[in-house]
Amino acid sequence: MSTVDDVSRPSRLADPDEGISIEELGLAARNHALPLEALRYDVTPVGLHYLLIHYDIPELDAERHLLTVDGRVDRPLTVDLAALRARPRVTRRVTLECAGNGRALLTPRPVSQPWLSEAVGTAEWTGTPLAPLLREAGLSTDAVDVVFSGADHGVERGVEQDYQRGLPVAEALREEVLLAYEMNGAPLLPQHGAPLRLVVPGWYGMAHVKWLTRITVLDREFDGYQNAVAYRLRTSVDDPGVPVTRIEPRALVQPPGFPDFMSRTRVVRPGPCTVRGRAWSGHAPVTSVEVTTDGGLTWAAATLAPATPEGRHGPGGQNEQDGRDGQKRPDDDGRWAWRSWRYEWPATPGRYTLGARASDASGRTQPVEQPWNRGGFANNLVQRVEVVVTGERQVSEPRRLSP
Amino acid sequence: MSTVDDVSRPSRLADPDEGISIEELGLAARNHALPLEALRYDVTPVGLHYLLIHYDIPELDAERHLLTVDGRVDRPLTVDLAALRARPRVTRRVTLECAGNGRALLTPRPVSQPWLSEAVGTAEWTGTPLAPLLREAGLSTDAVDVVFSGADHGVERGVEQDYQRGLPVAEALREEVLLAYEMNGAPLLPQHGAPLRLVVPGWYGMAHVKWLTRITVLDREFDGYQNAVAYRLRTSVDDPGVPVTRIEPRALVQPPGFPDFMSRTRVVRPGPCTVRGRAWSGHAPVTSVEVTTDGGLTWAAATLAPATPEGRHGPGGQNEQDGRDGQKRPDDDGRWAWRSWRYEWPATPGRYTLGARASDASGRTQPVEQPWNRGGFANNLVQRVEVVVTGERQVSEPRRLSP
Repeated sequence: MSTVDDVSRPSRLADPDEGISIEELGLAARNHALPLEALRYDVTPVGLHYLLIHYDIPELDAERHLLTVDGRVDRPLTVDLAALRARPRVTRRVTLECAGNGRALLTPRPVSQPWLSEAVGTAEWTGTPLAPLLREAGLSTDAVDVVFSGADHGVERGVEQDYQRGLPVAEALREEVLLAYEMNGAPLLPQHGAPLRLVVPGWYGMAHVKWLTRITVLDREFDGYQNAVAYRLRTSVDDPGVPVTRIEPRALVQPPGFPDFMSRTRVVRPGPCTVRGRAWSGHAPVTSVEVTTDGGLTWAAATLAPATPEGRHGPGGQNEQDGRDGQKRPDDDGRWAWRSWRYEWPATPGRYTLGARASDASGRTQPVEQPWNRGGFANNLVQRVEVVVTGERQVSEPRRLSP
Repeated sequence: MSTVDDVSRPSRLADPDEGISIEELGLAARNHALPLEALRYDVTPVGLHYLLIHYDIPELDAERHLLTVDGRVDRPLTVDLAALRARPRVTRRVTLECAGNGRALLTPRPVSQPWLSEAVGTAEWTGTPLAPLLREAGLSTDAVDVVFSGADHGVERGVEQDYQRGLPVAEALREEVLLAYEMNGAPLLPQHGAPLRLVVPGWYGMAHVKWLTRITVLDREFDGYQNAVAYRLRTSVDDPGVPVTRIEPRALVQPPGFPDFMSRTRVVRPGPCTVRGRAWSGHAPVTSVEVTTDGGLTWAAATLAPATPEGRHGPGGQNEQDGRDGQKRPDDDGRWAWRSWRYEWPATPGRYTLGARASDASGRTQPVEQPWNRGGFANNLVQRVEVVVTGERQVSEPRRLSP
């Protein structure tokens, strides 16, 4: 007799020489990363922000959508989207990163969504703060975890579930946490949680529950699948591990020059080259970025731009695209968004491996040796961008059409 | 001395047991497919439409962007976007598919962008017809090919190039061909060719040149890389092959039930199950769709919906998202867009492999045995959707929170 158990297999590590499987490729085709050249945009254009969808994108009707707050509260309540929109409205610029970013580059490789280094994006999220709504419902004094339930439904390692995540009550009450109904000035798209999602600045993506239907306050730690089984840092199958929470510091290089189609190796002409990128951390402000051009042997300081949301909107920020360049600025100081950096590189002919590492005010930095755990979470190994600086100023220029 | 030749390697086929490489994965992470549940939308929401970007997304300024028409014309001309917007405005609903769709499922596998079955999307493209502009420039009587140049720049198999494609003059003069500046009622996004792209209804995606800067009329066949080398159906390296042109018929199943996270195998409850999907062809109208539940051994007729653009807009069609539901209908009969179909399946417990095959008025249909060529192009092998119909009506229901 077939049951849901028949569709799942246990988690595993790839064999040493095992290529990416068709199953992993299937996840990569659905859940896309940020094309690295899109690091040029302060706010990631719609459709370029990374996506991780555990099951299917659900089909929800914004007009009829309801959010229920229940559990250990004095006054359980149910509100519709119009009621949420009538509440105080806040916009925050926030960088989101998937907790599994970098997983496919680990040895051994945990077999799951096979991210390289680009599972990140920055958006302007508009919604209403969560804390006042929780206070209106009246949190019990014994409240421990707040559980957020999404409408996406599936099976994971044999467990049928709606996607649910618990958040400690102190985190849920942070003023920055939003019930978001807009992204980059437009209603949420289906793949980003339409019509309502949670945004928890500083935390990895798994906390930002999409397609939000229910908020339940518990007098104990939530022991559901995504907290107790999935998103934990474990050294082995038997290790209970510790929860994945905030984003570790990371810097990414916007690859200079132009790419080869297949290898994505970059071609750079000799001469002065401004290398740019972004850096972020969910623990504390980024305090420095260093750049390497030799794969991590030597490092030089990059120049860090101020942490403000006042940077230009590149072409394609949706605000601009929509001709809505009244450009309402976010209601924060940009501390939850990535920061720009640049490094002046005198490029001379040869082969190089570029990378960058961020450090933050909590003392955290990025490793050159891989940080490994069985789920491949919170992995902030330094990126490797292969570059060839050509020996001549002009080599095989593009075809000129002489009609 | 390093040159651009050092960044490319020759095209190749994967070894029989070779998994997907990190290079192929890197392309999959950039160039995403349509999540199959998004087949539910008549018009694909922004960000879910498939993407294939050969090099980097270029950074272009719509305000300063110019399009030049030159070559074998009497009156070469250069126009800006305002001038193009002042010309007759047309909206067409068009299904685009990547010519390499299905490549990663071939044996042997051509090593390139590793598409499974989902490199497709349908959008409403708004722009101005190309043919009147070409006529104003005055096509020479000896015109043979019209070459479209994009601003994206890179190296491919050792050839540095701006992306360029030639189109036979008779195709370029078809009334349906558009210079498009909007997608789903909003300005083009950077990844879809902002601020200007070509749309050639019925042709695979490689013809719809993005980031369009130049149109050059030739008195001969264009022998540039993308026409003479890349997009050709070859049986071997030495075979000159024939050009890839129009989209072969294909049907896709919108997977029923709900998925397992890792395997994407579907779980369906026993009972009546309406299986839905889409079907399209660039050669001629789709005339029938058949469905299999046993991996192609037996087939049954599906019910095909009319070919009109009058279907509902699902939630998330950008028109609706933007509250612009004045819903201007496309200026065509929907003949270039996919059609809906459905099949009533009495699901009983067991394991199934669902698939569908489309046939069109030109007599073309989809094969169950793979059609193979060295580039993996125009491959319309029948999809395989693995389904488990559970033996019980309710199995391991999602956790109920009792606070």
